[in-house]
Amino acid sequence: MPSEQDRNDRVLFARNPRGVPTLEDFTRDSVPVPEPGPGHFLVRNRYLAIEPYYRNVMKGMALYGRPLAPGDVMFGETLSEVVVSRHDGFAAGDILVARGGWQEYALLDGSSVRKLSVSSAPPTTALGVLGTPGLTGFVGMVYLVPPHPGQTVVVSAATGPVGSTAGQTARMMGARVIGIAGSADKCVYAVRELGFEQCINYKSGSLAERLKEACPGGIDVYFDNVGGDTLAAVLGNLALNAQIVLCGMIGAYNLDAPPTGPHLGPVVVARATIKGLVVFDHFGRLPELERVVGGWIRDGKFKYREDIADTLAEAPAAFCRLMRGENFGKSLVRIS
Amino acid sequence: MPSEQDRNDRVLFARNPRGVPTLEDFTRDSVPVPEPGPGHFLVRNRYLAIEPYYRNVMKGMALYGRPLAPGDVMFGETLSEVVVSRHDGFAAGDILVARGGWQEYALLDGSSVRKLSVSSAPPTTALGVLGTPGLTGFVGMVYLVPPHPGQTVVVSAATGPVGSTAGQTARMMGARVIGIAGSADKCVYAVRELGFEQCINYKSGSLAERLKEACPGGIDVYFDNVGGDTLAAVLGNLALNAQIVLCGMIGAYNLDAPPTGPHLGPVVVARATIKGLVVFDHFGRLPELERVVGGWIRDGKFKYREDIADTLAEAPAAFCRLMRGENFGKSLVRIS
Repeated sequence: MPSEQDRNDRVLFARNPRGVPTLEDFTRDSVPVPEPGPGHFLVRNRYLAIEPYYRNVMKGMALYGRPLAPGDVMFGETLSEVVVSRHDGFAAGDILVARGGWQEYALLDGSSVRKLSVSSAPPTTALGVLGTPGLTGFVGMVYLVPPHPGQTVVVSAATGPVGSTAGQTARMMGARVIGIAGSADKCVYAVRELGFEQCINYKSGSLAERLKEACPGGIDVYFDNVGGDTLAAVLGNLALNAQIVLCGMIGAYNLDAPPTGPHLGPVVVARATIKGLVVFDHFGRLPELERVVGGWIRDGKFKYREDIADTLAEAPAAFCRLMRGENFGKSLVRIS
Repeated sequence: MPSEQDRNDRVLFARNPRGVPTLEDFTRDSVPVPEPGPGHFLVRNRYLAIEPYYRNVMKGMALYGRPLAPGDVMFGETLSEVVVSRHDGFAAGDILVARGGWQEYALLDGSSVRKLSVSSAPPTTALGVLGTPGLTGFVGMVYLVPPHPGQTVVVSAATGPVGSTAGQTARMMGARVIGIAGSADKCVYAVRELGFEQCINYKSGSLAERLKEACPGGIDVYFDNVGGDTLAAVLGNLALNAQIVLCGMIGAYNLDAPPTGPHLGPVVVARATIKGLVVFDHFGRLPELERVVGGWIRDGKFKYREDIADTLAEAPAAFCRLMRGENFGKSLVRIS
């Protein structure tokens, strides 16, 4: 339980960034730790998940509810521990995934909260490969665009939590997995640790040409995580009846007006299918994710990587790095 | 049987057009009528179908086989009558849909040929609503993006053979159909004759705004026939779980390099599905098309319109009109 001297350090939303976010888009303050009223509980945030979609929240996109006003605590998903509860469903010591925001403490009412079940995986995985990002990669691959054994699957942002889960799930399903990532280090990791057959650094040479070499029979399944030029390069290399799942377009998040997209003529020629995925629809499959992917982690068959900043004050810089593609693994901030 | 004096007038491919085709992209000549050797037969072409995809043939797109060389007879689908046969499977008087080309006579070997079954519909429908274009609209709607009764279906190029078949099929399936077409006359026809609930002239005002008014609950199914700005306007008005079928992008056919496409963010948000359709895959359903749509025609429930040029010499002008969107109904050329 916090003492009266304890303060709640917070990172606040200052403004919708112009393009790629900068540190000036955030401010900080410190306020007294609040006390929970009836039906509420106080949590201490242990880890903050840094997510690309926060950029859309900063833009006020309707999908994410009420727009932030300048001075509001930044919206964010957290791994949190209950410290004081006046809510029947929660007790001190409970570990939760919550929307605790970019701050040390948060008052919650129990909505949009998930109690962590006992798991042998480290709790931070609940924000990564065993949380929303992992669920995105897992349900996309298993339910939306399931590859047949031996088919060629391409995954972008291959070393992030979404892409690494999508790609390793495809590998478990017997597919041949080709990653796309933004550095030589990431590509080495994707092949050595994640077990992808190849990984292409999209910053080095023509991605379309490299994909043609890596996928001589064409791309059967593409898990798209980024949109933009990467998606266009993939569309030029589709196999007949290719399946594509789109779950986000990080490049577009930095723009106020939507950019153009790829020419869709190749989708016709390939008789391809494109499906949009919003992970909110699939939260009911979290227990399945924990059981299946959690089992693979326990058995040493599934790897993941975290990129952890050490204090809440570093959260804005971590977010800016993520939006420039400079993180390597699931971006997290250790708060306390 | 042609006499020795008979000549075979032909329209020849001159060059890949620069942008929208012009008359200079074609030449004409006249040669003796050829005589069939063993295993071949001579047809007299009665009607030539004018099709947008010929523009891609002129470009040498691989999907359509060997590229045309300057001086080759223009590639084209025809309604043809066998006049002399040295092929066991065909006899004088047989009426065929064939790739007879832009000429009065053609020598054929029986491949890529379809004998017309006896039908109460006029034979020219075999090049339109009961042929490849109609099959595209029918299988797209019934098998790729089937609407539920009461759902809102939008169809572009609404008065052409593909769009009018797609839209009327959707109406038969109980959907509410909104057309998009390029003139006030076409829109009146779509509502009065084709039974669409509304039809929007995309040349008049903001298509995106007009679609929002016509589809307050969003667009459940979109049959795309044109790509480009029309597709982008539709993507801004999708209902949840919308289904889109893409079967061609006429605007792109006039370009040597592929254009950009629409931003696909709305596909993610709507959890939409996009499917590419190439009608060649579905030729096995022609008997079903003849039975089902042919039955609707006989019963007066299904309308179609033809835009017929009177002589082979007018074929280049008819094709240029089609590629500028100035035809009204299935574009045909009466040859003899």
